[in-house]
Amino acid sequence: MRRTALSSRGSSCIKSSFRPAVQAQVRWNASASSEPHQPDAKGTVKGAPAPAKTIEFTSNKYPEIKRDSKFATLTQEHVKYFQGLLGSESAVLDGVSKDASEDIEPYNSDWMRKFRGHAQLVLRPGSTEEVSKILKYCNENMLAVVPQGGNTGLVGGSVPVFDEIVISMQKMNKIRSFDDVSGILVADAGVILEVADNYLAEKNHIFPLDLGAKGSCHVGGNVATNAGGLRLLRYGSLHGSVLGIEAVLPDGRIMNDLVTLRKNNTGYDLKQLFIGGEGTLGIVTAISIICPQRPQAVNVAYFGLESYDHAQKAFRAAKTQLGEILSAFEMMDGRTQKMLRDVTGRKMPLEGEHPFYCLIETSGSNTDHDSEKLQNFLEHVMEQEIVADGVMSENQTQFADIWSCREGITEILGHWGGVYKYDLSLPIGDLYALVDETRERLTQAGLLGDSESHPVVDVVGYGHMGDANLHLNIPTRGYNKDVEKALEPWVYEWVQQKNGSISAEHGLGVTKKPYIGYSRDDTMIGMMKQIKNLYDPNGIMNPYKYI
Amino acid sequence: MRRTALSSRGSSCIKSSFRPAVQAQVRWNASASSEPHQPDAKGTVKGAPAPAKTIEFTSNKYPEIKRDSKFATLTQEHVKYFQGLLGSESAVLDGVSKDASEDIEPYNSDWMRKFRGHAQLVLRPGSTEEVSKILKYCNENMLAVVPQGGNTGLVGGSVPVFDEIVISMQKMNKIRSFDDVSGILVADAGVILEVADNYLAEKNHIFPLDLGAKGSCHVGGNVATNAGGLRLLRYGSLHGSVLGIEAVLPDGRIMNDLVTLRKNNTGYDLKQLFIGGEGTLGIVTAISIICPQRPQAVNVAYFGLESYDHAQKAFRAAKTQLGEILSAFEMMDGRTQKMLRDVTGRKMPLEGEHPFYCLIETSGSNTDHDSEKLQNFLEHVMEQEIVADGVMSENQTQFADIWSCREGITEILGHWGGVYKYDLSLPIGDLYALVDETRERLTQAGLLGDSESHPVVDVVGYGHMGDANLHLNIPTRGYNKDVEKALEPWVYEWVQQKNGSISAEHGLGVTKKPYIGYSRDDTMIGMMKQIKNLYDPNGIMNPYKYI
Repeated sequence: MRRTALSSRGSSCIKSSFRPAVQAQVRWNASASSEPHQPDAKGTVKGAPAPAKTIEFTSNKYPEIKRDSKFATLTQEHVKYFQGLLGSESAVLDGVSKDASEDIEPYNSDWMRKFRGHAQLVLRPGSTEEVSKILKYCNENMLAVVPQGGNTGLVGGSVPVFDEIVISMQKMNKIRSFDDVSGILVADAGVILEVADNYLAEKNHIFPLDLGAKGSCHVGGNVATNAGGLRLLRYGSLHGSVLGIEAVLPDGRIMNDLVTLRKNNTGYDLKQLFIGGEGTLGIVTAISIICPQRPQAVNVAYFGLESYDHAQKAFRAAKTQLGEILSAFEMMDGRTQKMLRDVTGRKMPLEGEHPFYCLIETSGSNTDHDSEKLQNFLEHVMEQEIVADGVMSENQTQFADIWSCREGITEILGHWGGVYKYDLSLPIGDLYALVDETRERLTQAGLLGDSESHPVVDVVGYGHMGDANLHLNIPTRGYNKDVEKALEPWVYEWVQQKNGSISAEHGLGVTKKPYIGYSRDDTMIGMMKQIKNLYDPNGIMNPYKYI
Repeated sequence: MRRTALSSRGSSCIKSSFRPAVQAQVRWNASASSEPHQPDAKGTVKGAPAPAKTIEFTSNKYPEIKRDSKFATLTQEHVKYFQGLLGSESAVLDGVSKDASEDIEPYNSDWMRKFRGHAQLVLRPGSTEEVSKILKYCNENMLAVVPQGGNTGLVGGSVPVFDEIVISMQKMNKIRSFDDVSGILVADAGVILEVADNYLAEKNHIFPLDLGAKGSCHVGGNVATNAGGLRLLRYGSLHGSVLGIEAVLPDGRIMNDLVTLRKNNTGYDLKQLFIGGEGTLGIVTAISIICPQRPQAVNVAYFGLESYDHAQKAFRAAKTQLGEILSAFEMMDGRTQKMLRDVTGRKMPLEGEHPFYCLIETSGSNTDHDSEKLQNFLEHVMEQEIVADGVMSENQTQFADIWSCREGITEILGHWGGVYKYDLSLPIGDLYALVDETRERLTQAGLLGDSESHPVVDVVGYGHMGDANLHLNIPTRGYNKDVEKALEPWVYEWVQQKNGSISAEHGLGVTKKPYIGYSRDDTMIGMMKQIKNLYDPNGIMNPYKYI
């Protein structure tokens, strides 16, 4: 890695010390799996520290949620129907599989070990028609269901709360088609994001979404949760890039909107309701999506800055000078970077300590042009004393190393026992003020400190600054009611006052359901409930969650 | 303009003859008004060849559409209510305005002179609250309404069929806010697109949508019709760029979803139903939209090609080599260019004749880089004998001149009396085959020829090839039932067989309502009707149209 000998005054020497970076095209393989203990493609948990059966039941953790008595409980007759339809390999009853290693607990609990349901049956349909028959039967028999993709969510949306039947999409994992003139990919919902992206890499294209869980998450789940991730700044939201969806409604109707057209103004764009619908209206069985050309050159730089105001100036300069090649602008506060160093013992890209850090990625079609743009940008931010210090990657190892300073944060925050996590959208100018105010609040309340007697270790902030998306995190020495009372609803009220969103990209699930009123008014919630009742009048789809 | 001395064999000399173009940043002013006779901001028609009152009534032209007797007819009491609410300047009754020049006919008819309604009352609310009171009253009194923006549509969606009250959004024309760090604009629905873009130009940003009618159309209308236009290839669809919508439902409820956040996963994305909803669920009163940095450099080139296959190769090469700076890829067949020359007597950019032409625009943040990319692209397409001849603009006049070869087509096609127009999405490989087959079909039927006895002049194709969007046009010497019988439903069946869309960007309105079944199956149409009945149970919003 080329460390720059830079101080803001030394800008005359920067031009030579900030050399054009070597392109590093395969970051997506190198740094994809920073999230710990995610289930793999088979739904089994790799390297989990303790069996899933030790996780507390969601029904105990949230005693205010009651099982809805309108739902039927599973009978031998139901099981017989599903095994007749799918075979016993794909309709797995807890504890009675022929395969002794088959344990359905990984389908009942999430990778964060925060949620655990009581499902007795997991169904793994292999076709849209099977999904249709399953849902029709469930709807007629008042059996509640929970659709499950890669089960990598953060809000408990993809696991049962009570005895909902899990419908796992993992067997629907075929890429259906790809057109290399238009760049349009059609894939089953259960295709793993990384598999889709690797497939596209061979065709010189790229999936317009990237996130830490890509080795496990399904493209159908990405769409159902409207995943945001690292490339939204460049490639936009799934509401724009998803061109078509095939989905099954609870009554078994198949919504065949799997078009491969960029433009189609023939009626209401119904598929949009399924993007971010979190499986509450139906099950997404396939998607069609427009994929950009894979960039020829990818560069990444890492900066230390003296304040959040400097980070904002850096973002504005990046937008102006890097223009169409800017593909990520991430912010990490100094506390996260110090923790990363202290917990892992790793060497950080910069030697000194700074209150803020930014990671800037560019992706473009011409290595020389991109390097020159980045060079001009670097000169500008140094001359203007916007950044204090910085490095650029010169090879793929360094590229992955810099990205791991951002992507490694999630994992180390759990080091002390627990983490309270908030995924918020805020006006960009107000983004970091919440972190400072939260820290101040918990300190004032005597909850934050260095000693074991304080439940809170620190309050830190990082996230997709280019999308005004803050991850506010409070690492703790264990979950604590006093901390929770100090945080909620205070954090949500703060966000509401700034017209922000209480869930930027992670969705509602179980966790955020009670708080939607902080981001949506009664009219909107009423309109949403009208939609839910319209398409899922029996309420069998992913109950106890969302709205 | 720099005409290249190019033949495919002479590629060695191209590098010097294809000089980097001068940037031309203000195309959007120079070539915006190519559509003839569009109403201006006041709803009056400029330069129309004959008074609106000579246009045939839609109710005569489509006798199969019957007025729904459930709707009330306008009474003195209704008028009194509206005049009390808005004042008589903003609740204009036909023929009784104090201002003698006020004629409501321009609100009753469209700029193509194809549609004309019988409205007696035009309402021009000045606030969202007024829109709410109007709709609530109309809903309670079973008065049908038609929302109207700039009235520049092509499918008769924005004018009444019978006596629907016109609700014009022209008085709601304020820009509410703009944030130059995030690039997010909030504007009333009635802001004219060009006004919004000029405002953004001062802030070094650009509206992510451009179309011929920009001098008249409203941003609210653009969103309500999900306008596509010239920049979709680069900036994506409004489903991705529109971040928030404020809309009024027929029962008067105000959907306040006017967020200024790029990410917000808190419930169903209801605003999407209003994007392309064509005013059938409610009235869009304001939008928030993310606007990119304005490009520093804009270049345009115009090519002659020997076949549609060559045009496809050129597109593929443009995607690869121009990458992130490609902002438009338009195709015009040789017939359109010959007509343009013959009808207008203008000089064309290239001297020879070619079966196909492409227009390629680049927009980027660095003039030199863009020119170099374009240069490399040009060398490639010449060396590979993909293009036969070409020119690049070197100044703004030439830039506008090249664009007028694309944008001027619409106007001249009406030269012989009438035009049958189809706006279709098709798989890119099949795009032009439909034009050839249509020409063959009409020729075989004896309907196409040079003499006055043949109703059809020719069959031509052009459009946004980069979006696989074909404008199939059939200029005629007058509207003719035999031609219509030969064209429909044959064209729609052809599109259906290719899984295309019968309306790529122009919407459904009156014209396409009967044909939606060619692009959507019964399940989807049924789901759409459920939505319509959910939010507009009385059906007062823009009746007789859409679905």
